[in-house]
Amino acid sequence: MKVGVIGLGLIGGSIAWDLRSQLMVHVTGYDISASHQEQALNRSLVDQIKDLETLVYESDVIILAIPVHHIASLLPGLLDKIRDGQIIIDLGSTKSNIAKEVLNHPSRGKYIAAHPLAGTEFSGPQAALRNLFNGKKNIICDRELSDKAAIEITISIFESLGMKTYFMSSEDHDKHLAYVSHLSHISSFTLGLTVLDIEKDEKTILDLAGTGLRSTVRLAASASGTWTPIFNTNKSHLLTALDQYMLRLSQFRDALKMNDTESLNALIDESNSIAKILN
Amino acid sequence: MKVGVIGLGLIGGSIAWDLRSQLMVHVTGYDISASHQEQALNRSLVDQIKDLETLVYESDVIILAIPVHHIASLLPGLLDKIRDGQIIIDLGSTKSNIAKEVLNHPSRGKYIAAHPLAGTEFSGPQAALRNLFNGKKNIICDRELSDKAAIEITISIFESLGMKTYFMSSEDHDKHLAYVSHLSHISSFTLGLTVLDIEKDEKTILDLAGTGLRSTVRLAASASGTWTPIFNTNKSHLLTALDQYMLRLSQFRDALKMNDTESLNALIDESNSIAKILN
Repeated sequence: MKVGVIGLGLIGGSIAWDLRSQLMVHVTGYDISASHQEQALNRSLVDQIKDLETLVYESDVIILAIPVHHIASLLPGLLDKIRDGQIIIDLGSTKSNIAKEVLNHPSRGKYIAAHPLAGTEFSGPQAALRNLFNGKKNIICDRELSDKAAIEITISIFESLGMKTYFMSSEDHDKHLAYVSHLSHISSFTLGLTVLDIEKDEKTILDLAGTGLRSTVRLAASASGTWTPIFNTNKSHLLTALDQYMLRLSQFRDALKMNDTESLNALIDESNSIAKILN
Repeated sequence: MKVGVIGLGLIGGSIAWDLRSQLMVHVTGYDISASHQEQALNRSLVDQIKDLETLVYESDVIILAIPVHHIASLLPGLLDKIRDGQIIIDLGSTKSNIAKEVLNHPSRGKYIAAHPLAGTEFSGPQAALRNLFNGKKNIICDRELSDKAAIEITISIFESLGMKTYFMSSEDHDKHLAYVSHLSHISSFTLGLTVLDIEKDEKTILDLAGTGLRSTVRLAASASGTWTPIFNTNKSHLLTALDQYMLRLSQFRDALKMNDTESLNALIDESNSIAKILN
């Protein structure tokens, strides 16, 4: 099996690296950035770099690990080109938008919509990690629209990376991810901005940052090139999540303003159970 | 030196444990909860348990590690009782409220307002950790109001725990902590509530929680008994911080709603620098 990875950042670079180094798969890479290509070669994330056309022609499995809006625009053209026996897997963090673009494509069956739930706040080939996916969850969306054989190959690839695969519709995926991933990125970016706003006047503030702030603001290091397209392509669900978040935040603010100790206690006690559920 | 620790939760229990086990100080403990006292003894966090009166009478250094509103109400009475050579250190997370209660007390010099910047999202004697304070920062507020000798003893205690001490006014402390600690707790509690709100209908959502959500929502496990009094006693600064946070959040929401990619990128790029500053 020859794998071609398009996009050699954190996700693409990490999957290429695991496939190469642990599973002895031959991996060809392509990235729109020449310096990313060079870094990926220098770190031995891929066996070789090829131009996009050649990579697509020569690979049995083509993996798309680029920003979600680029997946949506690139995928139909790639499906036009691939032959029987080739499949395309995308690893994008939103799925409905991409699904729509290829819904009626004659080669839709050769495409598998995947989302391995793994990552860090860093980006680019230098951020690629070995075993990033091990023990984590993978989602395949709209499985009924992909050929059975293509699904089986995809599951076995993710299994070999140490992932368990779950199935759901693109729509459900995007709704769920708005809450468990996209919203927490916005809360973290917002916290970063707010702390920076006051820090402009108060230079010593950040000297006082403890582990609590570091934890809640960690995701604020995430790249706009990745996340703005995710937010834009999940606008409707994310707006609903944001509205609920703002409502809950207002409850905190009102309780604080009114010295309403009982309500503050109730809000905190209720929130506590998220930790129990997650652990 | 005999140390008495009032309040044997995460902070009091951890400081007692380090003083006992690493510095061979004799530590007497008191907690209003009989089960906390028992747990502290069972975990050997303290040498012995005494009633409050006896602890205060017998200790050279009395450490207050109880919720901040209880510190404010207990401290004046303790200062009434202590003799020359005894000092009282409080470890509360807000300071102005406590400072006000004892500003004109004849024994004000025997009191040192401290805040070791360390902790976890857990609470109670079972959450006490060795070396919790090592390598972290300590703040002493309003140093000019404490006797010089009392300050020196306090610094040496925190130094022996591996902490560096910084000095500032109670007012500055509370303002700074609103941003670098209290606000991130509210954002985390709010995220927990929002995810739980949707999870009520969508049981599978939390199966999808990745490391990102776990990091941003970690503080949502923190106890209301600790945090409601902190929020209440830092109301003014925290409301200012919350208003700024809500303003920044609205900017995200507006940009998303308007498909304003440029503004989303700008907000994220600006927020990214918090990570550079913190690292």
